[in-house]
Amino acid sequence: MEESAPRQGRSVFVGLVGASQVLGLASVVLTGVWMGHYRQGFAWNGSAQEFNVHPLCMVLGLVFLHGDAILVYRVFRNEAKRNVKLLHGIIHLLALIISIIGFVAVFDYHRAAKIPDMYSLHSWCGMATLVLFCIQWVMGLLFFLFPVASSGLRAAYLPVHVFCGLVLLVMAIGTSLMGITEKLLFSIMPTYSQFTPEGVLANVLGLLLVLFGVLLGYLITREEYKRPPNPEEESLSVHFKTLTEGGSPTSP
Amino acid sequence: MEESAPRQGRSVFVGLVGASQVLGLASVVLTGVWMGHYRQGFAWNGSAQEFNVHPLCMVLGLVFLHGDAILVYRVFRNEAKRNVKLLHGIIHLLALIISIIGFVAVFDYHRAAKIPDMYSLHSWCGMATLVLFCIQWVMGLLFFLFPVASSGLRAAYLPVHVFCGLVLLVMAIGTSLMGITEKLLFSIMPTYSQFTPEGVLANVLGLLLVLFGVLLGYLITREEYKRPPNPEEESLSVHFKTLTEGGSPTSP
Repeated sequence: MEESAPRQGRSVFVGLVGASQVLGLASVVLTGVWMGHYRQGFAWNGSAQEFNVHPLCMVLGLVFLHGDAILVYRVFRNEAKRNVKLLHGIIHLLALIISIIGFVAVFDYHRAAKIPDMYSLHSWCGMATLVLFCIQWVMGLLFFLFPVASSGLRAAYLPVHVFCGLVLLVMAIGTSLMGITEKLLFSIMPTYSQFTPEGVLANVLGLLLVLFGVLLGYLITREEYKRPPNPEEESLSVHFKTLTEGGSPTSP
Repeated sequence: MEESAPRQGRSVFVGLVGASQVLGLASVVLTGVWMGHYRQGFAWNGSAQEFNVHPLCMVLGLVFLHGDAILVYRVFRNEAKRNVKLLHGIIHLLALIISIIGFVAVFDYHRAAKIPDMYSLHSWCGMATLVLFCIQWVMGLLFFLFPVASSGLRAAYLPVHVFCGLVLLVMAIGTSLMGITEKLLFSIMPTYSQFTPEGVLANVLGLLLVLFGVLLGYLITREEYKRPPNPEEESLSVHFKTLTEGGSPTSP
């Protein structure tokens, strides 16, 4: 009985991570189906089809990849920290590039269609999320991947970095929900209240995004899923740090 | 220098709590101004003025009071736990009653105006939030205020209760942002993109709600603001528990 408890905990963890991936991938696929099937597909020519690139890039980059970049610290919690950090940074970079493409798509479409920019709450929250995401990525790079800050500063910044990462994921999901609402009211306002398939599909997409966020939040904040301290790594890190600056080390 | 650190931490905490209250109250006031000044005020007669009761009740009940009910565990972390629990439950009950009034207002208005119910993503998320909020309140009552569960079950449920409380606050804020977007597109779609005062005011309201949520999230999850263990309370609780069931006690 005592031996089965950690194994049971492990399978719950694997199940939850699996469920989060199903939810995340389903969200990306559903966004693709919505834009591809109901909204005339994708193009890069200033038309409404270029706009369609925007939701797909945001759900893929700022929600799914962003969430998975955070999740690597839980999934690979027994791997070498340096490698996990690198993976975390690379997935975030990919998320950032895809998100910027998504932003360019909507600004490009607005310019071609002479639609004003940045007037809606969705756009205000989206811009705030992307700008803060960029700052968070650069700060992470400077503090943890090429650590230029003292160990004391790194230790003080680590919980802020972790908190801000989760806040930005939640902001990305909240902004997506507003984006879904906007798109439906702009496109199908007269039929939305009749439970038209496009409206129901977009609503289900919204719920999947919420569930993805809740599951990610649970996996990230649950104490038992956190990276266990590795005495060997700590000791190596101490030696390296004491050689260079004499402080006590900390890393995410 | 060493003595000033806790005092400095204390003033940061007081400053953050103060800021959260300013943000929360400003959100309620701004919702009132939006509905009162730009949307013809309030009434209870099935008209659009009855609808206006809905946003005000939701921001006051499901966001501001909900957030403050959680915050009492941080603000009164050195008071007797029983009293804080009672205050937590009472503020949540108040939040629940006000939220239900807000729900009745919108269903009443829809019925009078022959508008279908529950078709939008906003309504799906709002209903999920209210139903889960009710379940969370009843579970909290049964587990912690009139503890009918064993101490083991209470200890296992506590982190779930805390996590769900924060998730529901975030869901309430996300649903409010969708509600703001819906209301603006239904009411002022042609002028929203011209930065009309009503649109800007509603956008600012959305940002205040986001900032309220971020600040609450920080205050609630920050380790140093958590309730310190009270040996006297623990010991009393242990004696009481061992007398009744022989288990080890835990309470929120």
